[in-house]
Amino acid sequence: MRMVDLIEKKRDGHELSTEEINFIIQGYTEGSIPDYQVSAFTMAVVFRGMTEKERADLTMAMVKSGDQIDLSQIEGIKVDKHSTGGVGDTTTLVLGPLVASVGVPVAKMSGRGLGHTGGTIDKLESVAGFHVEIDSSEFTELVNKNKIAVIGQSGNLTPADKKLYALRDVTGTVESIPLIASSIMSKKIAAGADAIVLDVKTGAGAFMKTLEDSRELARAMVGIGNKVGRRTMAVISDMSQPLGFAIGNALEVKEAIDTLKGEGPEDLTELCLTLGSHMVFLGGKAPSLKEARSLLEEAIQNGSALEKLKIFLSSQGGDATVVDNPEKLPQAKYTFELEAKEDGYVSEIVADEVGTAAMLLGAGRATKESVIDLAVGLVLRKKIGDQVNKGESLVTIYSNFEDIKEVSEKLYENIKISSSKVEAPTLIYEEITE
Amino acid sequence: MRMVDLIEKKRDGHELSTEEINFIIQGYTEGSIPDYQVSAFTMAVVFRGMTEKERADLTMAMVKSGDQIDLSQIEGIKVDKHSTGGVGDTTTLVLGPLVASVGVPVAKMSGRGLGHTGGTIDKLESVAGFHVEIDSSEFTELVNKNKIAVIGQSGNLTPADKKLYALRDVTGTVESIPLIASSIMSKKIAAGADAIVLDVKTGAGAFMKTLEDSRELARAMVGIGNKVGRRTMAVISDMSQPLGFAIGNALEVKEAIDTLKGEGPEDLTELCLTLGSHMVFLGGKAPSLKEARSLLEEAIQNGSALEKLKIFLSSQGGDATVVDNPEKLPQAKYTFELEAKEDGYVSEIVADEVGTAAMLLGAGRATKESVIDLAVGLVLRKKIGDQVNKGESLVTIYSNFEDIKEVSEKLYENIKISSSKVEAPTLIYEEITE
Repeated sequence: MRMVDLIEKKRDGHELSTEEINFIIQGYTEGSIPDYQVSAFTMAVVFRGMTEKERADLTMAMVKSGDQIDLSQIEGIKVDKHSTGGVGDTTTLVLGPLVASVGVPVAKMSGRGLGHTGGTIDKLESVAGFHVEIDSSEFTELVNKNKIAVIGQSGNLTPADKKLYALRDVTGTVESIPLIASSIMSKKIAAGADAIVLDVKTGAGAFMKTLEDSRELARAMVGIGNKVGRRTMAVISDMSQPLGFAIGNALEVKEAIDTLKGEGPEDLTELCLTLGSHMVFLGGKAPSLKEARSLLEEAIQNGSALEKLKIFLSSQGGDATVVDNPEKLPQAKYTFELEAKEDGYVSEIVADEVGTAAMLLGAGRATKESVIDLAVGLVLRKKIGDQVNKGESLVTIYSNFEDIKEVSEKLYENIKISSSKVEAPTLIYEEITE
Repeated sequence: MRMVDLIEKKRDGHELSTEEINFIIQGYTEGSIPDYQVSAFTMAVVFRGMTEKERADLTMAMVKSGDQIDLSQIEGIKVDKHSTGGVGDTTTLVLGPLVASVGVPVAKMSGRGLGHTGGTIDKLESVAGFHVEIDSSEFTELVNKNKIAVIGQSGNLTPADKKLYALRDVTGTVESIPLIASSIMSKKIAAGADAIVLDVKTGAGAFMKTLEDSRELARAMVGIGNKVGRRTMAVISDMSQPLGFAIGNALEVKEAIDTLKGEGPEDLTELCLTLGSHMVFLGGKAPSLKEARSLLEEAIQNGSALEKLKIFLSSQGGDATVVDNPEKLPQAKYTFELEAKEDGYVSEIVADEVGTAAMLLGAGRATKESVIDLAVGLVLRKKIGDQVNKGESLVTIYSNFEDIKEVSEKLYENIKISSSKVEAPTLIYEEITE
C-alpha cells in the first residue's frame, strides 16, 4: 500500500477501506508516513468529507494508536459527557454529582487545559485540599463506592489524534467535520466510556457558529459512537451568550453548588437536566428520558445531589464545608459593578470576548505556563433579552487588581443594549439520538 | 504573513495576491515554509484552482526562484516549442532545422530525461561525433551564424518548480491544471524564450486523456504566457496512438531526415508544419500562419531544411554525411516483423504500452542510471484506420537481442485489429491563440 495512492483515492472521492485507514494512522503515528502526505490527505478530506464508515474507522484507528483506559472494574454503564467548548460552561461540575446521586457511575478523567477559565481540575482545586493525585485502583474503588471520582489525565491516549491535530492546526485543515468528530470521539472512547452524551454548542461563542454545522457535527459524532458500539446521544445547545452567570473558577464552583441546590441560573439548570437525563437513560437507571429527568429533579429537591457533591469533594481530600459555606472558596480582593450606560434590553453578549475579559483578570491560561487566579472572574447580572435600566449592574467583576479599565472596556464593547425588546435565545435546539 | 492563513484563504476559494504567492514560493524554496504546509496548499489548489492572475504570479515566482538564461545576445525573436509528452514524438528533431532554415533562431537547451526513448540530446548523439558540450558564448555564436544550436542543460533553473514537483508527485497533487501549466511555463520562461509554441497532446497516450482537459491545459498555458509578456500559442494534437512511425533514438533521427526531405509520415509532417507555422509567425518571419506554412513547405521542397540539418550537425561535431547515408546511423543486429494474426483494420495502438515495448528493447531509460541503446526500437508499419491482411507486418522490431518474446507479446496485446472499418483519428483538434 502506498500513501500517495490513498491520497489520490480520497481526492477523487472514493471510500477508503478499514485497512487503508489503519495504514494511514499507524504509519503516521510511527513516523513512516510523513507530515506532508498526511496534510495533503487531510486537505482532501476537507473537500471530500468521509463516509460514516470511514469516520468510525478513523476514530478506532486513533483509539488503537495509544493506551486505552480500562474501566471494566467499575460497576455499571460508564457514561461520559463531552461539551464542544464555550464560555462559562459549568455543566461538568453540576452533572457529575447530579447523575452520580441517582446511581450512574461518573469515572472522570480530566485535565487543566488552556482557555478563558481553567479546566475541571483547576475549578475543583478552588476547594481547599481537593486533589486528583490518586492511583487507578483508588479511583476504581472511589467510583464503585461513591459513584463519582475525578482523576488527572495519564497514559498515552490517542497519540495519533494529538499528532494529527497539531498538523491540522498549521495546515488549514481544522475545519472538517469528520476530522473534528473523529478527534473528539477517539478521546472519549480511549478514556473508556461505554456510552457518551455530547453537548454540541452552537452560536457566536461556539466553535460551530451555525445550527447547520452544529447539527452536522452532532450527527457525525452520534454516527461514529453508535457504529463502534458506544451508545451516543447529542444535545445542541445555545452558545450565543455565556451559559449561566459565572465565568471563573471558584465562581463556577459556587454556581454549581447553587444549581445542585435548585437555586442556579435557569439556563444552566435546564441544560444540566437535559444532558443529565440522557446520561441517566443511557446509564440504564431510568426507562425513559422523562423518568430520568424526574429522578434528577428529585435528587435536587431532596438534597441528595448536594450531598453527593460533599461526599465527592471530601473523598478526594477537599473541604466539603464549602458547600454550605461558599465564602470559604477563594475570594477576590475587589468587586466592581459594570453599570449600564443606558436603558434598554440586552441584545448581545459576545461570549468569546467576555471570556477573554475573564482571562485578562487571571481566570484562565493563555499559555501552558500561565498561573490561574482561582478567585477572579465575572458574574453576569443580565442576559440576552433582559430589561436593564441605566445605572443597573450588567456584570459583577471579581478582581485582584484595582485597575480594571481594560476589562470593563472590553465588557462594554461586547455587551450590547438595544432600545427595542429582544427575545431570549433558544437554549436547546435539538436532541439527536441516532 | 502566515502560511496557514494563505492555505485557508485558498481553501475558502479566495484569490491570493502577487505578494502572497511570492511569499509562498520564496519561503518554500528557502526552506522557511515546510513541505507539510505546501502540500496542504497544493491540495487546496487541486480543488479550488487558480485564477489567471494567480497562475501568472506563480509562474513568475518560480522563474525568479533560480537562474534565468539570458538570450539577449541572440538576434531575433527566440521562439521555443514545448510538447507535453507522448510516444514517438520526433517533432523537435524536425522543427529545429525546419524553422531555422527560414530564419527563426532556434536556441535550444535540452536534456536527456527518462522515458520510452531518450531525450533530444540522446537522439542527436546517434549521429557520430555530435556533442552539446559547448559554452554559452559558442552557443550564442552558433545560433547567430546558423540560426540553430543545442546546448545541454546548465544552471539552477526554477528550483522552486523542481522542489514543488517532487512534493506534488508524492502527495497526489500532480493532477492540477494550474500547477501543471505554471510548472511548464516557468521552465520555458526561465530558459529565455521570447515566444512559446505549445503542442498539447491529447488521448490515451498523453498525460491529458480527454480533449476537455487538454483544452483547459492549453488555455491555462497560453493565458500565463500572454499575461507575462511572452506571446504563446498552443496546438492540441492527437496522442491516441504514437506520432509518426518510429519509436527509438536513431530510428527517429532517420524519420526526421525523411520528414525534412518531404518523405516522412503524414501525421508527423502535418503536425510539424502546423507547429512550425506558429513558430515562424511568432518569430516575425511571416505575416500570417498561411504564409508561414508556405515558407516551410518551400524549405522542404527546395532542400534548404535538409541542408540546415547538415549544417547544424556538423557545427556541433556531428558526421553530417548520415543525412544522405542514414545507414551510417547505429544499426540493430536483428530485425523482426510483427505479423498480423488476422485480417481487418487497426483499431487501437496503445501508445504508452508500445512505448514501453521500445523501452524493453533498450531504447529508453527506466532510471537515471540506465544506458540507452541508440540503435533499437520500433517502426510502425500500420496505424489506426489502416487495413491489414493476415501475415502483413504491423511493426518492424529493431533489436540487439534475439529473444523478443516479451516485446512481441506486449505489442500484440496493445495493437488491436477490428473486423469492421475504423476511422483514422483526427490529428489536430484545435489551435489556441489566446
